Amino acid sequence: MTEYIHFELGAWSARQLAAVEQALNRWVAPPEPRPAPAGLGDAMRYAVLDGGKRLRPLLVMAACEAVQGSPAAALRVACAVELIHAYSLVHDDMPCMDNDILRRGKPTVHVKFGQAQALLAGDALQALAFELLTPEDGSIDPATQATLCRMLAQAAGYQGMAGGQAIDLASVGKALTSAELHDMHRLKTGALLQASVMMGAACGAAPAPARNALCDYGAAVGLAFQVVDDILDVTADSATLGKTAGKDAAQDKPTFVSLMGLPASRNYAQELLSQAHHSLKASELGPTAALSALADMLVNRTS
Amino acid sequence: MTEYIHFELGAWSARQLAAVEQALNRWVAPPEPRPAPAGLGDAMRYAVLDGGKRLRPLLVMAACEAVQGSPAAALRVACAVELIHAYSLVHDDMPCMDNDILRRGKPTVHVKFGQAQALLAGDALQALAFELLTPEDGSIDPATQATLCRMLAQAAGYQGMAGGQAIDLASVGKALTSAELHDMHRLKTGALLQASVMMGAACGAAPAPARNALCDYGAAVGLAFQVVDDILDVTADSATLGKTAGKDAAQDKPTFVSLMGLPASRNYAQELLSQAHHSLKASELGPTAALSALADMLVNRTS
Repeated sequence: MTEYIHFELGAWSARQLAAVEQALNRWVAPPEPRPAPAGLGDAMRYAVLDGGKRLRPLLVMAACEAVQGSPAAALRVACAVELIHAYSLVHDDMPCMDNDILRRGKPTVHVKFGQAQALLAGDALQALAFELLTPEDGSIDPATQATLCRMLAQAAGYQGMAGGQAIDLASVGKALTSAELHDMHRLKTGALLQASVMMGAACGAAPAPARNALCDYGAAVGLAFQVVDDILDVTADSATLGKTAGKDAAQDKPTFVSLMGLPASRNYAQELLSQAHHSLKASELGPTAALSALADMLVNRTS
Repeated sequence: MTEYIHFELGAWSARQLAAVEQALNRWVAPPEPRPAPAGLGDAMRYAVLDGGKRLRPLLVMAACEAVQGSPAAALRVACAVELIHAYSLVHDDMPCMDNDILRRGKPTVHVKFGQAQALLAGDALQALAFELLTPEDGSIDPATQATLCRMLAQAAGYQGMAGGQAIDLASVGKALTSAELHDMHRLKTGALLQASVMMGAACGAAPAPARNALCDYGAAVGLAFQVVDDILDVTADSATLGKTAGKDAAQDKPTFVSLMGLPASRNYAQELLSQAHHSLKASELGPTAALSALADMLVNRTS
């Protein structure tokens, strides 16, 4: 995309991530002035801090930038969305779910703190996400707070992420159709990625057509993310991924690669990337360089 | 309390509960028009419908009545608070926590649907609580939605219910001081009971002194509830309770009874009841008959 050739994603991301890390450090069960009881704060912070690509926060910040919204509001939204993502990983890694012991190159939360504490830490992180969206410091006006809570609750709940995980759970060892696989991922990872874009956009004002175009961008990017994830599961190694590679095949989980094969999956990822760029253009918003570069990075990543 | 002698709690409760049950049935992952995916809705509905004393919803409705607030808003709040309570029971019953197989006289959710589905159902119920608080139908104005989400998130999170459960987890087999035991219950059950009162009151307008008095009422009632729970754990049988009796002693959990003995615990419950009535009087609100009668019921219950 030649029109964005002068945008430096690395520098932009570093700036955003510095703010996000600092905010998470300040807002997630801080040890001062009064620590969360009985080690719960340690498990929550371990689950969230110093790890992950922070893709969702970056999408939030980029979407807010596209609509020239409030950076202070977006920072809270970015952290809230990341907390939902982090809690879902904590619960997903537990023995009764994926039973994974490695995440972001570290022992998973239940390995480190025990299952009961992992369960509670996940629960508390979900609640904290909504707390971050409803500050009393004036950084987000009350009507926007309500909108943001609604968007996050829908994206996280049974018609979003949790619903997708239920499909995932039921799909192990089953042959899914392409439509069913799409449906699973639209909910499981797509809903929260799309919500990241839309909640970032809700931090500012944008005309309805622009918002609809961003919604399309979010859908394309959300799906592309999962297609690439499936590709990397068979092409990358555990050290690069920071999690166990080859898990999907080992667990006989349906993936885009198992359904379409590797070359077609790669083409599909590129096609979704084109759709994402097309939607950004259709939005007629000016400052979409970060959203554009994020889509590129997301599809062409190697871990 | 002679001034409330003509208030019939039974009839009032029956009216409120009919509305709450109908609303929960309509709002919790309804099978129509599109069921929640992969059986998740069944697990969610099983966890919530046809069960429980609905004490929290009753407190919400009674507090709303006391401030002459919006019944439509209170109905959503009542359901949201009950969903948080229900999700906490689902997770609390799981093998890595209390490992309980009986709840409200029925098999617990993980026994019936498996641990993974129970974990997800709990997660989805928490998200749904915030969805119920942020409707687009005009039944709650946006600023109040934001306030309600904030109150619920704080009551459910690490400085509330989840924090209390972490203390509970860490306390098994340990001798707690009276202060520590109070602290645990203030968070574990007290926070959500008190939030029920305060969120019900947020459905209307009340002067600050009245709100503070209701806050004190909520604290007294929340603590009394737990003292009575501890008493019933040693004096009632499983059939009456609809859950396993004598569990606290069997698990060597500190309780008010183990700390103070049975007679002193009973006196303490009555003392808290007096405090609750005193706070209601101090609120100078007119229609507090339901709150008053609920406090009596809660302390004098036998199951």
